[in-house]
Amino acid sequence: MPTTATLPSCYTDLGVLRREAATLGSIAGLVSWDQETYMPKGAAMARSEQMGLLARLGHERNTYPRLGELIGACESDASLMSDDRLAANVREMRRDYDLKTRLPAELVEELARVGSQAQEAWKLARGDSDFKAFQPWLEKMVSLTRRKGECLHAGDGELYDALLDEYEPGATASEIESVFAPLRQRLSAFISDINTNGAPPSTAPLDTKIPAAQQHAFGLRVLKALGFDLSTGRLDVTTHPFCSGLAPGDTRLTTRYRDERFTDALYGTMHEGGHGLYEQGLPKTDALFGTPLSDSISLGIHESQSRMWENLVGRSRSFWVWALPIANECFDNALSAYTPDDMVKAVNTSTPSLIRVEADEGTYNLHVMLRFELERALIAGDLSVSDVPGAWNERMKSMLGLDVPSDAKGCLQDVHWAFGLMGYFPTYTLGNLYASQFWEAILRDIPDLESGFERGEFAPLLTWLRTNIHAHGRQYRASDLCERVTGAPLSPEPLLRHLARRIRPAYGLGE
Amino acid sequence: MPTTATLPSCYTDLGVLRREAATLGSIAGLVSWDQETYMPKGAAMARSEQMGLLARLGHERNTYPRLGELIGACESDASLMSDDRLAANVREMRRDYDLKTRLPAELVEELARVGSQAQEAWKLARGDSDFKAFQPWLEKMVSLTRRKGECLHAGDGELYDALLDEYEPGATASEIESVFAPLRQRLSAFISDINTNGAPPSTAPLDTKIPAAQQHAFGLRVLKALGFDLSTGRLDVTTHPFCSGLAPGDTRLTTRYRDERFTDALYGTMHEGGHGLYEQGLPKTDALFGTPLSDSISLGIHESQSRMWENLVGRSRSFWVWALPIANECFDNALSAYTPDDMVKAVNTSTPSLIRVEADEGTYNLHVMLRFELERALIAGDLSVSDVPGAWNERMKSMLGLDVPSDAKGCLQDVHWAFGLMGYFPTYTLGNLYASQFWEAILRDIPDLESGFERGEFAPLLTWLRTNIHAHGRQYRASDLCERVTGAPLSPEPLLRHLARRIRPAYGLGE
Repeated sequence: MPTTATLPSCYTDLGVLRREAATLGSIAGLVSWDQETYMPKGAAMARSEQMGLLARLGHERNTYPRLGELIGACESDASLMSDDRLAANVREMRRDYDLKTRLPAELVEELARVGSQAQEAWKLARGDSDFKAFQPWLEKMVSLTRRKGECLHAGDGELYDALLDEYEPGATASEIESVFAPLRQRLSAFISDINTNGAPPSTAPLDTKIPAAQQHAFGLRVLKALGFDLSTGRLDVTTHPFCSGLAPGDTRLTTRYRDERFTDALYGTMHEGGHGLYEQGLPKTDALFGTPLSDSISLGIHESQSRMWENLVGRSRSFWVWALPIANECFDNALSAYTPDDMVKAVNTSTPSLIRVEADEGTYNLHVMLRFELERALIAGDLSVSDVPGAWNERMKSMLGLDVPSDAKGCLQDVHWAFGLMGYFPTYTLGNLYASQFWEAILRDIPDLESGFERGEFAPLLTWLRTNIHAHGRQYRASDLCERVTGAPLSPEPLLRHLARRIRPAYGLGE
Repeated sequence: MPTTATLPSCYTDLGVLRREAATLGSIAGLVSWDQETYMPKGAAMARSEQMGLLARLGHERNTYPRLGELIGACESDASLMSDDRLAANVREMRRDYDLKTRLPAELVEELARVGSQAQEAWKLARGDSDFKAFQPWLEKMVSLTRRKGECLHAGDGELYDALLDEYEPGATASEIESVFAPLRQRLSAFISDINTNGAPPSTAPLDTKIPAAQQHAFGLRVLKALGFDLSTGRLDVTTHPFCSGLAPGDTRLTTRYRDERFTDALYGTMHEGGHGLYEQGLPKTDALFGTPLSDSISLGIHESQSRMWENLVGRSRSFWVWALPIANECFDNALSAYTPDDMVKAVNTSTPSLIRVEADEGTYNLHVMLRFELERALIAGDLSVSDVPGAWNERMKSMLGLDVPSDAKGCLQDVHWAFGLMGYFPTYTLGNLYASQFWEAILRDIPDLESGFERGEFAPLLTWLRTNIHAHGRQYRASDLCERVTGAPLSPEPLLRHLARRIRPAYGLGE
């Protein structure tokens, strides 16, 4: 890359404008984090006004006509565009600008303001398992999100694609459905097979009651060992776990603790930790912060990082060889009766359950597909908000064989729709697919990777991810990165191979 | 007050502009709170950029020429100005506008940005007791603050007055010195007298070690009983306790815990709680938020509220009659050997000590006067930053008779100067003076006030404060409010009477 001194002023001026927008975004990230963690409930109205104002100010800066002029000038600068990384930065700034300028400022502000209120309504409704209380808010958010889709919509394809494209650039609902359909079928067959022909392993280790404070200490030990830097990050407690890479040097994770099933919090922490490692690995340098090269590629790639640490690392035998003694240290030897093999089997069961974020690897993607179907229908106008609980419960029965006892454990369990995040859920399954495919490539590069985990050596994996994925920022599209890193387009086979290799032995079946 | 429908548009438009500035201020308040409570230390650079940007955006909104035009239009509207409250609101908006427009935007942003970095440098320097590491930052902040004073300076009087006026409108350094000089003399005589002629009470109750978690539970019980609403507020832990009334429905207190001297944290919590009760009592309604009528009068009046709850309430016998059983509930009966009288005597000793925020009521104002003298000399250019530790230590010896063992316990103990808060310290003593003078007025209105405390009845006091002080916002100047409420101008006599009544009996002397 040319040195700063040789960069044309159109490019450096662009950086200054983008940086101010990014700084406003980082402030909004913090304000939003606070709303989820420490905000007193009486502050909700003031908070929605703050969020609305920040959204408006950010949007103004993302749509300055001057920004468009500068991007145009950069695009005309042949010398600049001959540099791959700079050209990618300009290409992505063009994409952002074109998308943002399609959204009216009042809609952006309204989405932020109403979303902030809807989030509070969701919290209350979820607590009371009262969908009716949330329904008017969800109606507002669906309506606002459809308006957003209409603004972004480029012409052909369905409205949903315009929303999806924001989270997973270039992906379409029909492409996704063409991957999801066979995956759904093969997964169903797989789950049916192990539950018919296999012997379910004992999950007794997971019933061990561990106080929240001990779980927190263990979670921090694991995060540090994986390479998460706690001098530029935090771990807090929220209703709905998330990761926010909110500013350079400020990546915040949240988790939640229950006395039973300590592995829910552990894997929640490792999941958000995986997102956090990506955020900490992005090149948010002084020169790049605010530009696409310091940003993540897509939510699917982001999720590939979280799911890799959560599942491919965290549910492996070698992880438990290392982690079990440490867990016993933190838990006053509460798990001393168990071996690493006991732990691995227990965390690799596959049984239909109600809550997505607590679902096992085998059934998880069915939860995602359920949401994908419903939100696609909501946006298409084929499903009305009042019918969401019924449609949800019906699919839980047909896809997972479960009766939903309450909306809190059904359609009110996730916050996403309250924020207007529609087109977001399918990226979870894309993440699982990418994670498994990357993993096979990593094992080709580092054959003894997993044996290192037994000694707590996670640095080789992190270094590989930093070099091959994190360092690029948004230089490549997800599909290009996949080809570049794995030598092949995205395929469901690595994920299915991984699940078979992990789950079948736990049920006493051959891989 | 006229209804909204009858208000002229110049007035309502002014409200809209002020509200956006206030919302930006509320965001900056939250970002600043986070920096003190939960921010990872690696986020310091990004945080200073956020603070700088928010300061610039806020300043832009506080200095829009349109704001000046609208204020002018309001001032010309005789009907509007015939309403006392509306006229006060316009008068105070004029004051704010005139002051803010004297400050260049780049100076405002630099003060915020450098202040944010200086605050981090102060934290490290204080931890290492290394003044040299903080010195260049303090030099920058003194220089920036002097520049600010030069911009605000109206012509006559010393530069320091221009800084003081921001925190205590209308006050001057020489006026303050004319009150402080006799107060210093009378206080010195008082402390000398009790220590020569009296018998120091036992402070053994304060040596009881109480775990932080138990102190926190007790602090929350006390806050709730005083009337602090925890659904619109919080209590967290920081190095330097503070209160931030950062938005409508969002008032945040912080305190700090040590195992010994649990009363340090208790009185810290009651002190910040008193600030918080004022913030929660200000009319931050939808119609008024952002205008001066929803703001506090001055720091001196703010401090009168904190010191009243901390000292006049919290160190009274009747408070301990109520609080001691509750403390024993929270502390596993750790104080069961003591009576309320033991507690009252122990918390009403007066012995010179090193740390201002832990100083007793008798010696506290000497700490303030020391800082007032030094910062006045720093601003006047009569003291160089490198000489601060020496000057500090010399005054600690001459005023309090103490040797300062380290800068951490000397000139590095307070964060104020790192933020550029110079002209701020004297308001602490003004607060003590106002609190005692208000108290005598309250006792005239509610003679049995203190006996109610024995039953945990603090509502009559809070109601009196809400009605006579909080509800007015900035309608009156501090000196006007004092005359209105107490019937007399500010005098040192009520404070001296209060100290004699409280401290002399603890030393076995007549009131």
